[in-house]
Amino acid sequence: MADKPTRVVLYGSGLMGSVIIRYLIEKGFDLVGVIDNNPDLVGKDAGAVAGLGRDLGVVVSDDADAVLSQGADIAILTLMSLMSDMEPFFAQCARHGVNAISTCEEAFYPRTTSPEITDRLDALAKEHGVTLTGSGYQDVYWGNLATVIAGSTQRIESMEGVSSYNVDDYGIALAKVHGVGMTPEQFQREIAEANVPSFAMNVPGWIASQLGLTMTEISQVLMPRYSDHPVASTTLGRDIEPGEALGMAARATAKTAEGVAIIMEVRGLVYEPGDTDLNDWVIRGEPTTAVSVDKPNTVELTCGTIVNRLPQVIAAPPGFTTLELLPPAKYLPVVA
Amino acid sequence: MADKPTRVVLYGSGLMGSVIIRYLIEKGFDLVGVIDNNPDLVGKDAGAVAGLGRDLGVVVSDDADAVLSQGADIAILTLMSLMSDMEPFFAQCARHGVNAISTCEEAFYPRTTSPEITDRLDALAKEHGVTLTGSGYQDVYWGNLATVIAGSTQRIESMEGVSSYNVDDYGIALAKVHGVGMTPEQFQREIAEANVPSFAMNVPGWIASQLGLTMTEISQVLMPRYSDHPVASTTLGRDIEPGEALGMAARATAKTAEGVAIIMEVRGLVYEPGDTDLNDWVIRGEPTTAVSVDKPNTVELTCGTIVNRLPQVIAAPPGFTTLELLPPAKYLPVVA
Repeated sequence: MADKPTRVVLYGSGLMGSVIIRYLIEKGFDLVGVIDNNPDLVGKDAGAVAGLGRDLGVVVSDDADAVLSQGADIAILTLMSLMSDMEPFFAQCARHGVNAISTCEEAFYPRTTSPEITDRLDALAKEHGVTLTGSGYQDVYWGNLATVIAGSTQRIESMEGVSSYNVDDYGIALAKVHGVGMTPEQFQREIAEANVPSFAMNVPGWIASQLGLTMTEISQVLMPRYSDHPVASTTLGRDIEPGEALGMAARATAKTAEGVAIIMEVRGLVYEPGDTDLNDWVIRGEPTTAVSVDKPNTVELTCGTIVNRLPQVIAAPPGFTTLELLPPAKYLPVVA
Repeated sequence: MADKPTRVVLYGSGLMGSVIIRYLIEKGFDLVGVIDNNPDLVGKDAGAVAGLGRDLGVVVSDDADAVLSQGADIAILTLMSLMSDMEPFFAQCARHGVNAISTCEEAFYPRTTSPEITDRLDALAKEHGVTLTGSGYQDVYWGNLATVIAGSTQRIESMEGVSSYNVDDYGIALAKVHGVGMTPEQFQREIAEANVPSFAMNVPGWIASQLGLTMTEISQVLMPRYSDHPVASTTLGRDIEPGEALGMAARATAKTAEGVAIIMEVRGLVYEPGDTDLNDWVIRGEPTTAVSVDKPNTVELTCGTIVNRLPQVIAAPPGFTTLELLPPAKYLPVVA
């Protein structure tokens, strides 16, 4: 981190934020502010929020403008999963001249699902000379893991990814967009018919953009999943009964002008005991290559990727800059 | 490939070269020359060498200087596995002002095992304004696959890779440096005591360089492997008897000043029926993540990576430029 530590604001100190606080400290970043409107957290020291056993001298504030106006190199936004919810927070950072990176899954590559919001934020970011972006687990395991394999392939017919994670690890915002606890009628109305863009929908555009392929069409199928017995959900604070969705599998299928199909299936479910995360890719063509990640810890890998990305994002050109355009996230050694 | 196709010379048209000829044609490269001193190949059309069923109008020549003096954007060298053998061929390309990329495994990151040769070639390449480098399977599966996972990790204690391949797929040059067919005494004298640098020895330096880690020590252990029954080898053209090595496992262990251990084990063996290639990485730390490639086709992936790398290498700065310094190999679509 050299002589002048990078000044970081954490915006949202829930499940992910509390891990990120510790990661920032371990890597020598200067945590200069924590923003959250949860009354249970406001006024608490960030060290207590992260369970560090010591104070950091940074207290959680619900006055975002006050915190951001003190200046920072970058803000980490761990708030919500959709761009429509995130736009005001990205915009707020931009207006304060603070770069921002968010765990918002749609922000990974929002041009496919929210092009107007992305354009507005891109213009605002350029006006204020800051970079806005999204990253996390998906940056590596839905993105560069697949494109690195592609780089060794002569002829690709399709790139097919499947990833699952435990909705209970990510908090209520993510559970909501997965239809957790909904009846089939609710799921049909609020998720399927609303055609809420799934996280899978952001993957083909990211990959196509990095590889220079032209995406010609994309569509998604959303499939709720049920159990025949009650399953405890910590996020909902109750059992999910048979007839209520544990979450869903979402599959996005895209075609490109160059003949490469890109298919991503994302399964976000409240896990039962024994369920583990999975992340597999098959690149079909010459040759066909399959790569599999064994029980990835998606929460830690999301926080790890975000923190490792900070120097690259700060140095990136202004705008809403998606990360397929930069080299892959680079490991930063711990210093503490 | 735009209007002006990239002009490529293939230097060595054995097992790998014949695949590369087809890959180049499929991706719209202009194959302008093929060099080989094998009397069975000299005078043959490259299309016949590659089994394309049609002539390409490019005939195999044993006059390397004549071919290189006609000019080319880059030469692909599929000749030998060690830098000491490859130095004159790299130097020859440089003197003709032709960039060169080689499947030579040591060329992947030769600074660890052959620093003087690398320095000489680096100076010569800069003098002539060309880039010299090595790539292939190792570029992706021993390199960027591991570092991409590292980029999502908070704290790395060790990076541990293991890879195996069938020596019979790669020809006699590679079999020789693996001790294939040697008695224990021969192996001890010609491989173990000679401490011939194994391919594993080039991996930790590549990874450390990309991650900005300082390698403080590295050592290797070479372990011959035997069978209790005869095993047919196509490369040796005979059975390998019990008491003769099928090849070896080589393990390189490196430490870094930042506390990250990097361990690579490479198993090069004449396979028995049912054996398949494997390539696994475990990144230990917070979190621990394991990634596994299912039966990688190392020959096709080597040729695919080399061809996909060509535009990046041509555009790279002059010198002996190892590829951990560039972004990962990027998939080029086929055009034919």
